[in-house]
Amino acid sequence: MADQPIPLITLTTDFGTRDAYVAAMKGVLLSLAPQARLVDITHEIRPQDVMEAAFVLREAVPYFPPGTIHLVVVDPGVGTARRAVALRHGAHWFVGPDNGLFTLVLGTERPDELVELNRPEFWRTPTPSQTFHGRDIFAPAAGHLAAGRSLQEIGTPLEQLTTLRWMEPSASNESIHGWVVHVDRFGNCITNVSRELFERYRAGRPFKCYVGSTPFTQVQPTYGAVAQGEALLLFGSSDFLEIAVNGGNAAELLGIRQGTPVHIIFEQKPSRS
Amino acid sequence: MADQPIPLITLTTDFGTRDAYVAAMKGVLLSLAPQARLVDITHEIRPQDVMEAAFVLREAVPYFPPGTIHLVVVDPGVGTARRAVALRHGAHWFVGPDNGLFTLVLGTERPDELVELNRPEFWRTPTPSQTFHGRDIFAPAAGHLAAGRSLQEIGTPLEQLTTLRWMEPSASNESIHGWVVHVDRFGNCITNVSRELFERYRAGRPFKCYVGSTPFTQVQPTYGAVAQGEALLLFGSSDFLEIAVNGGNAAELLGIRQGTPVHIIFEQKPSRS
Amino acid sequence: MADQPIPLITLTTDFGTRDAYVAAMKGVLLSLAPQARLVDITHEIRPQDVMEAAFVLREAVPYFPPGTIHLVVVDPGVGTARRAVALRHGAHWFVGPDNGLFTLVLGTERPDELVELNRPEFWRTPTPSQTFHGRDIFAPAAGHLAAGRSLQEIGTPLEQLTTLRWMEPSASNESIHGWVVHVDRFGNCITNVSRELFERYRAGRPFKCYVGSTPFTQVQPTYGAVAQGEALLLFGSSDFLEIAVNGGNAAELLGIRQGTPVHIIFEQKPSRS
Repeated sequence: MADQPIPLITLTTDFGTRDAYVAAMKGVLLSLAPQARLVDITHEIRPQDVMEAAFVLREAVPYFPPGTIHLVVVDPGVGTARRAVALRHGAHWFVGPDNGLFTLVLGTERPDELVELNRPEFWRTPTPSQTFHGRDIFAPAAGHLAAGRSLQEIGTPLEQLTTLRWMEPSASNESIHGWVVHVDRFGNCITNVSRELFERYRAGRPFKCYVGSTPFTQVQPTYGAVAQGEALLLFGSSDFLEIAVNGGNAAELLGIRQGTPVHIIFEQKPSRS
Repeated sequence: MADQPIPLITLTTDFGTRDAYVAAMKGVLLSLAPQARLVDITHEIRPQDVMEAAFVLREAVPYFPPGTIHLVVVDPGVGTARRAVALRHGAHWFVGPDNGLFTLVLGTERPDELVELNRPEFWRTPTPSQTFHGRDIFAPAAGHLAAGRSLQEIGTPLEQLTTLRWMEPSASNESIHGWVVHVDRFGNCITNVSRELFERYRAGRPFKCYVGSTPFTQVQPTYGAVAQGEALLLFGSSDFLEIAVNGGNAAELLGIRQGTPVHIIFEQKPSRS
Repeated sequence: MADQPIPLITLTTDFGTRDAYVAAMKGVLLSLAPQARLVDITHEIRPQDVMEAAFVLREAVPYFPPGTIHLVVVDPGVGTARRAVALRHGAHWFVGPDNGLFTLVLGTERPDELVELNRPEFWRTPTPSQTFHGRDIFAPAAGHLAAGRSLQEIGTPLEQLTTLRWMEPSASNESIHGWVVHVDRFGNCITNVSRELFERYRAGRPFKCYVGSTPFTQVQPTYGAVAQGEALLLFGSSDFLEIAVNGGNAAELLGIRQGTPVHIIFEQKPSRS
């Protein structure tokens, strides 16, 4: 499958690193594809937070080489009717539950190939644990892909992927309404407002951006552009609007959390009266 | 030693990931066996909790391929008289302090080979740190095994391994008394009562399972079998009885911790009177 | 560059493991050097704590094989005028911001080679993010080194490295004044007083060591040398003075934190009067 000599598999889960769950998946992967290189994206997704996983995935995937297989297991519906899927998007492969995890990586595009992982001969066991499909269905699928199997071999073609539609901000000539999607370790608050969306609707006009009650009227180039301890608005490393404090923790200092709304209001031409 | 071309070494410690301890061990491993693949099981074992390490090890080891070397350092007795050992059990190798860490992986079986790591020429230095045998004795042993040395070369045969005998629940025709051995990141509470033990003693009878004051009378197939927010009893992914809350944190909601007792009482045939 | 067949790159950051930042750097590294072996030293450096990173680096580096490349990104000045550098010290390579991170690894020595990473053709993009040089400048440099480029190719020779001068204790015939530089996961408190410095100034005399108000008068060989729950002073695994509690958490029990002063007073010959 992968063109490169050393298959590369990334892992993204909400399993944490205290338990044996991630290791069990890695054991399964290396049993099927002993040559595979494994790289953790993160295992600290908030338990069962599919949306956060979708955002983190979009931040990491573009930097991996063509041929990378991304194993993503944030799976609140494990053991219920939700489907297990694998797909190809350009030169990247993805494996995980069909619950919207891949919405942001795909954007407005459809997968180039999409299959349901419904062939028990490619599971770890024909009677998988009802609480741990990561080990018994998803890791085996990623392992088989890394070992050279095709999507068509390990699953049955599928038409449609589940997408989460409420992940994008709403935007108009007057304003953009988005929210904080991720608070990073430094307390920087990353929103779902991209530079492209912001600039397109702003069209060069002055603006006010409210996060809670604090209004910002400028976008800064970097943290050090304001005084130590001061709050600022900037485009972060993935080109999304971000609230930060130079040398400090914006989330703590400004009381911002995942989900906090962000309202941007553009100055309107004064109406003649 | 290992049959496979790429030696695989897992690491399990209570060292955490903030300090340089794990990295120092990995540097030692890769100095001796540059080809080795390293996989972390966990470094978040509660400090000096040999029993928790024994349980996590049993959860992870079965999923790794034959030939894997497991380096395990939870070592409250470092620098005292406890022995340093390495052993083979089937197609898996283990290295660590002789303090009971391997009790559950071995079960009722004895090691196929067992040696004491008492040959200074296979240590990192003849005068090892008295506080960090992981770096100076255990990692070198695992590295030498990965590089192709045999157990007999790096140590002296040993008859008997230290085992922890109080890790198993007590069971009778009337009841099973076990306890919670691990609380995972989701708050799921894993007990030391296996499906096999439970079914054997239950023998098809109705039962009541008390964890704290909450009684359960049924084992569910998966989290989603009960309503959102409701507590349930199920067999987890390693076939041990587990207390969970669908979509919630059972440990927090029910006040359960590692060590909380679990009492299962089987219905008795009414005595004739 | 590296003599060994498999290039080895370590990573040390304050990025934590919840976000996509570390993964983005690893994707960049493996895009440039698909063969490279990646080993995390830690990503849990306290946000922007250059001094802690310098100490942890010194604890880990000596155990890695010759030819290892160490990528270190603790970068409070990202996007400002501080330089990006790469250097060779003996058989180890280092890449990171020029803010004093390498002070302790180098000790009193100067780098064998030192370059500024000012050639955009070796960056990930000619317009790097102003908030994430780790991904856009430092990881590419480490990746190019791992792929066989020389320091001279990827940067411009530089004379002088920024060093932090206030990291060492002050010492005299009467006393040594140092401080706690790192509290590890076990609560052991590692100071910046080395065995060599201590023994040289002590010159065999009795001493009193105060950490807060607790005086120690002896250095113990290992934790188990005192009773369970008792505090002790010992030389840790990197030969720095350390305050610990046998089977307990010294930082919590004695109220010690990073930065807590350590005063050692040597007994003076009584003056004749």
